Amino acid sequence: MIYVVGIGPGSKDMMTLEAIKTMENADVIVGYKTYINLITEFIRDKEVVSNGMRQEIDRCKRAVEIAKEGKNVAVISSGDAGIYGMAGLILELTSKEETEVPVKVVPGVTASIGAAAILGAPIMHDFCHISLSDLLTPWEVIEKRLRLAAEADFVVCLYNPRSKGRSEHLAKAFEIMGEFKDGSIPVGIVKDVGREKEEKFVCTFDTMDFERVDMTTMVIIGNKSTFIDGDKIITPRGYTV
Amino acid sequence: MIYVVGIGPGSKDMMTLEAIKTMENADVIVGYKTYINLITEFIRDKEVVSNGMRQEIDRCKRAVEIAKEGKNVAVISSGDAGIYGMAGLILELTSKEETEVPVKVVPGVTASIGAAAILGAPIMHDFCHISLSDLLTPWEVIEKRLRLAAEADFVVCLYNPRSKGRSEHLAKAFEIMGEFKDGSIPVGIVKDVGREKEEKFVCTFDTMDFERVDMTTMVIIGNKSTFIDGDKIITPRGYTV
Repeated sequence: MIYVVGIGPGSKDMMTLEAIKTMENADVIVGYKTYINLITEFIRDKEVVSNGMRQEIDRCKRAVEIAKEGKNVAVISSGDAGIYGMAGLILELTSKEETEVPVKVVPGVTASIGAAAILGAPIMHDFCHISLSDLLTPWEVIEKRLRLAAEADFVVCLYNPRSKGRSEHLAKAFEIMGEFKDGSIPVGIVKDVGREKEEKFVCTFDTMDFERVDMTTMVIIGNKSTFIDGDKIITPRGYTV
Repeated sequence: MIYVVGIGPGSKDMMTLEAIKTMENADVIVGYKTYINLITEFIRDKEVVSNGMRQEIDRCKRAVEIAKEGKNVAVISSGDAGIYGMAGLILELTSKEETEVPVKVVPGVTASIGAAAILGAPIMHDFCHISLSDLLTPWEVIEKRLRLAAEADFVVCLYNPRSKGRSEHLAKAFEIMGEFKDGSIPVGIVKDVGREKEEKFVCTFDTMDFERVDMTTMVIIGNKSTFIDGDKIITPRGYTV
């Protein structure tokens, strides 16, 4: 049996009871080494299979092999396993197996939810998630989604906003959304949600500082009603208060 | 101090450690009575303030008053408190107070994430949340978002998809999205995520049965790459497997 476990943004406090129990009961834990370091207390004397970034396919194939030996495998994914995480890859691999390998996805708190809680209530109304990584998605598709999401006045949460290899994507994304997003719209930036070095910044669309952003940062852009109150960002649901 | 606590879809297993600790440490628990019934084990001899549907403003105002008396108040919200939950309303109310009332949002697993885990991995790629409730949002805004989200090929998660008072909204939403969503696109329906009567159905865009859906149902519509494997819905991230 394979459990694909969303461990939340990083701290134990943001893990669900089911995620903790699943890791405790697993025979083998499989994960990207950075995430394995976040859950050392659940590992103790367990067998661990870990490797580096961009080795997801190998890692997940290994998990499937171990499960076929009859062991309970917990595949660790940061945030929620079903949101840009390992759940899809595991299910794609097991769907190709001749014998059935049962899979259970254990949900978790994704980065946008963790970041939103720190910022206040920016995603209180309709919102979308867009990943700016074009490793697996053509950049034209990303551009189209950015433009239409801004036109629809969604609150926009950007995943994988900026890496060393493609530092210009974020500025380009803002340029595209700028056709519909006003300069005064609040923007929230949260780095390392739930981890030791957590930091937050509140600014507006036209005072955005792209240099503050790296791969472990969540960027949330408000809608036309979003406002800033002190260090908080609030998107009204529509109540008259 | 006010803690706005996302308790997840319903079961204790899907609560975070922080949500549980916060409820245990609170002096007073405030919430919609249906949700209070989901957390009776954390209440025991605590003071509870609960009321019915559409009385959110009264409930949150009461929470603010109690916090001003110096008590620790946990305001309960199903799913995540920052997604169509109570976090925004509490922050809107406290922003109007002359003396500062500290607020902390405790994140939780929202319904789309809980439903997605049950369905497999439907929200593995860019997705959006749209609420079909026009109680607080003009229907034209909802229509515009549905059309642009479908055009952008987002996976679409519908919140508040159908109530007795507006049973036709869901069919209308499908009609609008049908301009861009192909009839063969997978649709997942999950009722009462994480609760006793949980049920799931997998169908396609053109075999959708609107009668299966009520207010406690999550409807997830795939993108152009989403496929069905047995009873699971999978949206590929883009890996070549």
